[in-house]
Amino acid sequence: MSIDPGVTPRARFVIMYDRPSDVEAFERHYSEVHIPLAKQLPGLRRYTVSRDATPVIGEPYYLVVMLDWDDMEALGAAFGSEVGNRTAEDATTNLARYTTLRGMVVRLDDQ
Amino acid sequence: MSIDPGVTPRARFVIMYDRPSDVEAFERHYSEVHIPLAKQLPGLRRYTVSRDATPVIGEPYYLVVMLDWDDMEALGAAFGSEVGNRTAEDATTNLARYTTLRGMVVRLDDQ
Repeated sequence: MSIDPGVTPRARFVIMYDRPSDVEAFERHYSEVHIPLAKQLPGLRRYTVSRDATPVIGEPYYLVVMLDWDDMEALGAAFGSEVGNRTAEDATTNLARYTTLRGMVVRLDDQ
Repeated sequence: MSIDPGVTPRARFVIMYDRPSDVEAFERHYSEVHIPLAKQLPGLRRYTVSRDATPVIGEPYYLVVMLDWDDMEALGAAFGSEVGNRTAEDATTNLARYTTLRGMVVRLDDQ
């Protein structure tokens, strides 16, 4: 992964986690297994984690994660890669053991 | 607003709208009133709208909007401004007439 501020990302994967049943176990797995894995995703430009999302309207999420790629093609290639499969599986099997999550792919259209 | 790719944003406001009861009326108000208003927010670096968010895990949202500022101080100043108050009021009174929305402020911590 390399953060290149010269490229404006046009594709983003957003994952929002509700508060885990076992915060300590979730955090341990997230930091020790999931982050090192996700950082290997091909073409990943930026990977941010927000632990203190402030709700303005509606309910808060526990953790908000955003992964940026240059465009939808690069994001699609990462999702289809072997690392992509392992990262998705780690979230849906290991992390989902502690909490519910909501994930979506968005194309970023500037206004 | 000016998109400056030389600055990596550290603060983001995320708003997610469920499918409106009256899509046409919602879209008209959003494009004719809300976007022109929000684009006047002080210090706003980037304003993206995603109309085709693809759910990967969980339910989809109808519209996902992200507004970026350089840092939490700049975001806070925009929220506290007169334009900030008008923009928030437009969302919570006019847009909320057609749908439910969820909004949160996140500080972007790079991994």
